[in-house]
Amino acid sequence: MRPDPFQPELLSHDERFARDAQTGRLVWHRTFSRPLYADTDRSRVVYHANYLRFFELGRATLMRDLSFPYAEVEANGYIYPITKLELGFHVPLHYDEPMWIHTRPRPLERVRVTFDYVIIHGETGAIVCKGYTTHCALRGETGRPTAVDPHTLKMWERFPT
Amino acid sequence: MRPDPFQPELLSHDERFARDAQTGRLVWHRTFSRPLYADTDRSRVVYHANYLRFFELGRATLMRDLSFPYAEVEANGYIYPITKLELGFHVPLHYDEPMWIHTRPRPLERVRVTFDYVIIHGETGAIVCKGYTTHCALRGETGRPTAVDPHTLKMWERFPT
Amino acid sequence: MRPDPFQPELLSHDERFARDAQTGRLVWHRTFSRPLYADTDRSRVVYHANYLRFFELGRATLMRDLSFPYAEVEANGYIYPITKLELGFHVPLHYDEPMWIHTRPRPLERVRVTFDYVIIHGETGAIVCKGYTTHCALRGETGRPTAVDPHTLKMWERFPT
Amino acid sequence: MRPDPFQPELLSHDERFARDAQTGRLVWHRTFSRPLYADTDRSRVVYHANYLRFFELGRATLMRDLSFPYAEVEANGYIYPITKLELGFHVPLHYDEPMWIHTRPRPLERVRVTFDYVIIHGETGAIVCKGYTTHCALRGETGRPTAVDPHTLKMWERFPT
Repeated sequence: MRPDPFQPELLSHDERFARDAQTGRLVWHRTFSRPLYADTDRSRVVYHANYLRFFELGRATLMRDLSFPYAEVEANGYIYPITKLELGFHVPLHYDEPMWIHTRPRPLERVRVTFDYVIIHGETGAIVCKGYTTHCALRGETGRPTAVDPHTLKMWERFPT
Repeated sequence: MRPDPFQPELLSHDERFARDAQTGRLVWHRTFSRPLYADTDRSRVVYHANYLRFFELGRATLMRDLSFPYAEVEANGYIYPITKLELGFHVPLHYDEPMWIHTRPRPLERVRVTFDYVIIHGETGAIVCKGYTTHCALRGETGRPTAVDPHTLKMWERFPT
Repeated sequence: MRPDPFQPELLSHDERFARDAQTGRLVWHRTFSRPLYADTDRSRVVYHANYLRFFELGRATLMRDLSFPYAEVEANGYIYPITKLELGFHVPLHYDEPMWIHTRPRPLERVRVTFDYVIIHGETGAIVCKGYTTHCALRGETGRPTAVDPHTLKMWERFPT
Repeated sequence: MRPDPFQPELLSHDERFARDAQTGRLVWHRTFSRPLYADTDRSRVVYHANYLRFFELGRATLMRDLSFPYAEVEANGYIYPITKLELGFHVPLHYDEPMWIHTRPRPLERVRVTFDYVIIHGETGAIVCKGYTTHCALRGETGRPTAVDPHTLKMWERFPT
């Protein structure tokens, strides 16, 4: 149940990215946040569904940092609804505790994209939760599946390796 | 800070409505609910913003019970965004505690509608919170203010007195 | 991507349960709900994370209907945080559309319980989403893993087959 | 319905604060944010209750910047539940649009504190919404009203004028 530690080393030229020994030295984008009262529940820790909010923040920040905000992808006529997701919880995060949200895109498929996430506690470095979200590329007007759009392709190309 | 008790007597012919002594024997619509874990926060009670969710449930149920679901109002080309709201908190509501959400429409204005709300604890009868939401009638396509739509007018007429 | 239809037949003596052909005639508990505005997002359908709220509602209602509300399990000194969950989305659910949340417990493990969920559209019968949540039994005071508590065991025994 | 513009000038020595002509040149703390998909609803703008989340972010950041995080106030045995709040909406905020959350403490009362908020659109400068939250000082163990704690007093003293 206790995963190996996630030990990110910052990329020397760009501190928004880190390379991690646990995941075979893959590069991850990272975003900082803290849970609000609004994110917690009566067990005094973050409510499980609210980690998906932090995943959304990680994904949105990655896209903004690398190419274009997701709002522009939609403005160009594409949407990427989630078709599948998974989440595993390791140590709970309490109110106001610092966290680093690590996000990285998996190898691209023709009509789908998948992001992996690892949230670590900002002080202890412990893995809080891990998960992924798989999204399907659709044309906004028709709702029909389509090939991944050019902006999103660019994001994949620009992601550091 | 402690309000007078709200003492609803059910209307004999329709238990979805109650008359209350505290508010001058006004009639209120009532809806039952219980907070989920998702609604609570680390102080172990319902997070303040989530009472607005219960207000929405009260308002939606009142509309469905009296005339037409709000979805039909929108299907007819009107939207009613909130322009102003107020909330006062009296006793906290804990996870899974029963509540009755009391809702009633204030006298109609030309382009605005206001709902009052009183949530009481389902076991103790204590007032949990009170508030109101004011909504502006807009045409859906243009976003322009307009007179209150016929469905909503019907709701006002049908509300028992 | 399109799953086989979920075709629940109500148990003749208790309409809170249904038997489904798709899942080998397993029995499922069912709860009715409708999404609020609060549950939707700018793509005009339910935000993916909010289905976990509906899962919580299904689980809480199942426990209340079968044995004891979850609040009593906690009052007895146990908590059941989620350790793992998965969600797959099929057709989107819009504002105010009726849904049936189907929930059933998987065979019990010593220190863990898992619930499966299938949400179907209340009018079309289409599968909206499917998923599960796995929970770990912990002693409330110590936070230590423990065997599943007697109330929860009773729920498993009482679940119709 | 359209309020006068809020025209913040940054304090030259500390860009986390701004002085505004509309409010008689009062000083306000400011925090930057953007709505997530999770914050929006099917009308394609931020759901009204979620502005309270942004108010919480403004208040938490102000406290952290000026004296002590609110988590320390609680660690010292005090809690500050909201007893009353008001919100007025002017122009809607869409997904991912930048906002500045302006927050300032009202003159201190013996057992209560109040924060005012003005959220402005980060590009147009338009006022998105205004409101306040009033909080009551309570001892954490007993839940009894008490005088405002020393950390919070310090925040009031340090707030620039």
